[in-house]
Amino acid sequence: MVKVTVWNENRHENKNPLVRSVYPTGIHGAIAEFLRQESFEVRTATLDEPEHGLTDEVLNNTNVLIWWGHTAHEEVRDEVVEKVRLRVLDGMGLVVLHSGHFSKVFKKLMGTTCDLKWRDTGEKERLWVVNPGHPIASGVGEFIELEKEEMYGEHFDIPTPDELVFVSWFEGGEVFRSGCTYTRGNGKVFYFRPGHETFPTYYNADIQRVIANAVNWAKPVERNRPVYGNAKSLEKISSK
Amino acid sequence: MVKVTVWNENRHENKNPLVRSVYPTGIHGAIAEFLRQESFEVRTATLDEPEHGLTDEVLNNTNVLIWWGHTAHEEVRDEVVEKVRLRVLDGMGLVVLHSGHFSKVFKKLMGTTCDLKWRDTGEKERLWVVNPGHPIASGVGEFIELEKEEMYGEHFDIPTPDELVFVSWFEGGEVFRSGCTYTRGNGKVFYFRPGHETFPTYYNADIQRVIANAVNWAKPVERNRPVYGNAKSLEKISSK
Amino acid sequence: MVKVTVWNENRHENKNPLVRSVYPTGIHGAIAEFLRQESFEVRTATLDEPEHGLTDEVLNNTNVLIWWGHTAHEEVRDEVVEKVRLRVLDGMGLVVLHSGHFSKVFKKLMGTTCDLKWRDTGEKERLWVVNPGHPIASGVGEFIELEKEEMYGEHFDIPTPDELVFVSWFEGGEVFRSGCTYTRGNGKVFYFRPGHETFPTYYNADIQRVIANAVNWAKPVERNRPVYGNAKSLEKISSK
Amino acid sequence: MVKVTVWNENRHENKNPLVRSVYPTGIHGAIAEFLRQESFEVRTATLDEPEHGLTDEVLNNTNVLIWWGHTAHEEVRDEVVEKVRLRVLDGMGLVVLHSGHFSKVFKKLMGTTCDLKWRDTGEKERLWVVNPGHPIASGVGEFIELEKEEMYGEHFDIPTPDELVFVSWFEGGEVFRSGCTYTRGNGKVFYFRPGHETFPTYYNADIQRVIANAVNWAKPVERNRPVYGNAKSLEKISSK
Repeated sequence: MVKVTVWNENRHENKNPLVRSVYPTGIHGAIAEFLRQESFEVRTATLDEPEHGLTDEVLNNTNVLIWWGHTAHEEVRDEVVEKVRLRVLDGMGLVVLHSGHFSKVFKKLMGTTCDLKWRDTGEKERLWVVNPGHPIASGVGEFIELEKEEMYGEHFDIPTPDELVFVSWFEGGEVFRSGCTYTRGNGKVFYFRPGHETFPTYYNADIQRVIANAVNWAKPVERNRPVYGNAKSLEKISSK
Repeated sequence: MVKVTVWNENRHENKNPLVRSVYPTGIHGAIAEFLRQESFEVRTATLDEPEHGLTDEVLNNTNVLIWWGHTAHEEVRDEVVEKVRLRVLDGMGLVVLHSGHFSKVFKKLMGTTCDLKWRDTGEKERLWVVNPGHPIASGVGEFIELEKEEMYGEHFDIPTPDELVFVSWFEGGEVFRSGCTYTRGNGKVFYFRPGHETFPTYYNADIQRVIANAVNWAKPVERNRPVYGNAKSLEKISSK
Repeated sequence: MVKVTVWNENRHENKNPLVRSVYPTGIHGAIAEFLRQESFEVRTATLDEPEHGLTDEVLNNTNVLIWWGHTAHEEVRDEVVEKVRLRVLDGMGLVVLHSGHFSKVFKKLMGTTCDLKWRDTGEKERLWVVNPGHPIASGVGEFIELEKEEMYGEHFDIPTPDELVFVSWFEGGEVFRSGCTYTRGNGKVFYFRPGHETFPTYYNADIQRVIANAVNWAKPVERNRPVYGNAKSLEKISSK
Repeated sequence: MVKVTVWNENRHENKNPLVRSVYPTGIHGAIAEFLRQESFEVRTATLDEPEHGLTDEVLNNTNVLIWWGHTAHEEVRDEVVEKVRLRVLDGMGLVVLHSGHFSKVFKKLMGTTCDLKWRDTGEKERLWVVNPGHPIASGVGEFIELEKEEMYGEHFDIPTPDELVFVSWFEGGEVFRSGCTYTRGNGKVFYFRPGHETFPTYYNADIQRVIANAVNWAKPVERNRPVYGNAKSLEKISSK
C-alpha cells in the first residue's frame, strides 16, 4: 500500500476565516480525505509541528509526499528542506501543488527561480490535457474547468519538464504549463498548478483524480540505488 | 488483467536448427511463457497465420503488443501494419524487440530510417540503467550483462526518445541507446534492443523482468480519446 | 549563405479573391519577400509546377524548406513527399507552417495523425514564449498577438516535441502547442502554427522574425552523415 | 563578437609538475588559446584571484562562461556561485567541463547530487555522436577517440538532459552520457565530460571543435527577459 504524507503550511486556514470556511479541516485535511478513499495509507504533517511534522521516521515511511505552502516558505527550516530533497533523490515521490512552486524544496530541486505571473482576483481556468496517454491524466476528460482560480501565467521559470501533461487557459489571456513531470535522482516529481486557498478546488472530482493518479505515478520503484565513487574496471584494460 | 499479444515472425525457428534448438517453441513461445507467470493474459500470433494472426478481433482485445521480426519485414502486409499503427495511436501499448527496429510498424511510427550499425559475431553486451527511477528498470541492478549478443551501434536513426532507460556497452567498442520510450497518439511505445535469435537472451531473468515491466508501463490508460475537427468556441468571441 | 526554398500549394490564392487580395504574390511570395531581406538566398516552388517545383536539383540545393499547404495535400505526389522526407533525414531543415500539419511530409515524419481541433471564424490568438532562451524566440517579446486567426486547439496529435517554444491562447477557450521543434535523422523540423490564408499573418513583424529565426536554427550542420550497416569491431573481442 | 570567460581552479597546475608539464599555461590557458583562434573575445579567471576573478564587471561582460574545477570546489565562495547562477538564469551560457560536474554552480543549477562512478588509471574513451544534426557536433566524425582518459560511469545523477549529444564508451566496461544540454531560465548549459588534468585532452582538435561549437550554441539570444509577478489581465474577466 502506497504511504502518502500530505504536508501543508496550514497558516491561511488558521488566520483567514474565508479559507477556514472553505477548508475546515485544512487543505491537508481535504486532500488526505479523498486520498484515503483510494486505499492509500495517508497521514498529514504541518509547518507548526515539531520538525514541521517531517521527522526521519515520517520521511523514511513516506513513499509519496504532497506539498502545499504559500505564505511561510521562508519558515521551513533548511535542514528539513535538505532532508526532503535527499529523500526525493533516494526515490520518494513528490507532488508539489499550486503556490508550492516557490517552496524551498521545489526551487532547490529545479535550480531555477520558479517565478511566474499571477493574479488572484478569481477567473476561469481550463486545464487542457496535452498528453492523453499519460497515467496522470487517466480518467479525465479533454479538459478540467475551474470557474474561479488564481491565475498563474508564463513565463514559468522552470527547467524543461520531462513530460508536459496539462496546459492551462486563463480567462484573462494567459497560458501556463500546469502539469509537469520531472525525474530527480531516483525520485519522480509532479508539479500541479491548481489550488488557491480561497477556492474549493480540492473538492473538484477531476482535480482529486489527477492528484491520486500522480501519487500512483510518483511512487518509488523497487530496486537498489546506484553505486557512486571509485569503481574497479569490469573489463581488462589493455594498456595496463 | 492486461491482455498481451506476442507477435513473432517465426521464420528463423522453422529454417535454422540452431535457432530452433535455442527456442523450441519459437521466440514467441519463450516470451509468452514468462509473461504468463506474471498473470498477464497472453496469446501469440505469427506471420504465417491468416492476417498474420492480427485480426481485428485480436487487435481490439490486445492492451499491449510485443513485436519480434527480422528476415521477413517486407512480407508483413501494409494493411495490417496500418491497423497496428492506428491501434497504437488509439492507446494500445507496443513493445518492439531487437531487429523489430526495422519493422514496418516501428518505422512508420518513428518517421525515420531506424538504421544502425550491426555485427552478429557474438560479443559481450552490458546494458546500463541510466534512469534508475523508471518503472521499466524496476527490480534490475545497475546493469544487465549478456555474454553473447549481436552488436547494434550508434548512430541509431530514431527520433529523440521521450525517455532513455538503458544504454548498452559493447565489447567491440560501440554504444547504443537500447531502451527507449515514445508516446504516439494515446499509445506508448518501448523499444528494447536485446534478443538475437541465436542467443538465449529471452531466458535471462533480467531481460524477462524488463519486458514484463514494459508491458505494465505500456498498458493503456482509462479515458476517452480526444475529439478532433471543427469545434464550437467554449467562450464568447468578442468580435462576432 | 543559407539557401531557402518556400513551397506553397498556391491554390487558395488562385481561387479565392479574398485570399488573393491579402497575398497578391501568393503566400510564398510574401514569405520569400521578407526572408530575402535577411540575406538568405530564397527561391519559391508551388504545387502546379512540374514535380511540384521540387526537382532533385532544387532539393539538393535547399538548406531549409518552408512548407505551406491546405486544400490539396492529397495532390502532392508520394514520390516527391518521400524525396523531401529523405532530404530532411539527410540534414535539410524543414519549417512547416499552419495547415501544413496535415501535409503528407509532416505526417510521415511524425508517424501520428497530426489531427487537432479547429475553428476558422477569426478570433484573437496570443502566442506565449515558454522557452525564452531559444534562438527561435530571439527578438520577440513575451507574446505575439494576432487579432484574427483561425483557432487550432488541443489535443494536437503529434509526438512529444523535442522543444516547445510557443503555446497559444485563443479567445474561444483553447490552447495549442504552436511552436514545436523535432530532430529527424540529421535534419531539424520546426512546426509553427499561425498563418490562415484569409488573414495577413505573414506581414506581422514578429511572425516574420520567428520564421527567419527558424531558418537559421534549422540549417544543416557541417559534418559527414553517419555510416550504417555491418561494422567491423573497433576493439578486440575476447571470445573469438 | 561572443565574449568568453574561461574559469579554472588552477590548483593542479601549481602543485603537480606532471599537470604543469601537460598544461604549462594552465588548463584555462590552453582552452583560451584555441578559442581565440575562433575569433571569440576571450579572457580567463582563476580561483585565487580576488572574487575568483568573477567580479560583477567580468560576469556582466561574459556571454559564455567555461568552468573547470576539481580539487577545490568547496573553496569557491557561495556568493560568487549564486552570482554565476543568476547570470545563467539571466541568459549567460555555461559550459561545464569534466570534474566541474561536482562544482557548486552545476549542482545548484541541476538540483541533484551530480554523482557518478570514476576511475583515473587512464584508459580508452570513445565519445559517440548520438545527435548528428546538433550544432555542438558540427565538424566532428562519428566518434571522438581519446587514448587515455579518466573514466566516468553511469549512473550519472543528473536531471534528464534536454538533449543528449554524446555517449561515451570506456575500455573498462562503462558508458556515460558525456555531452548533455540544459535550459535554465534564459540561459543554456552544456556539460562535456572529457578533460582530466593529467592527459592532453584539450589539445585534441575534435575536443576543441566541440567546445567552440558549444560556445556558439550557448550564447544568449537577443530579447528582453520575461516579466514576473502580479499581472493585469489582458482580457476582460466576465465575472468581475
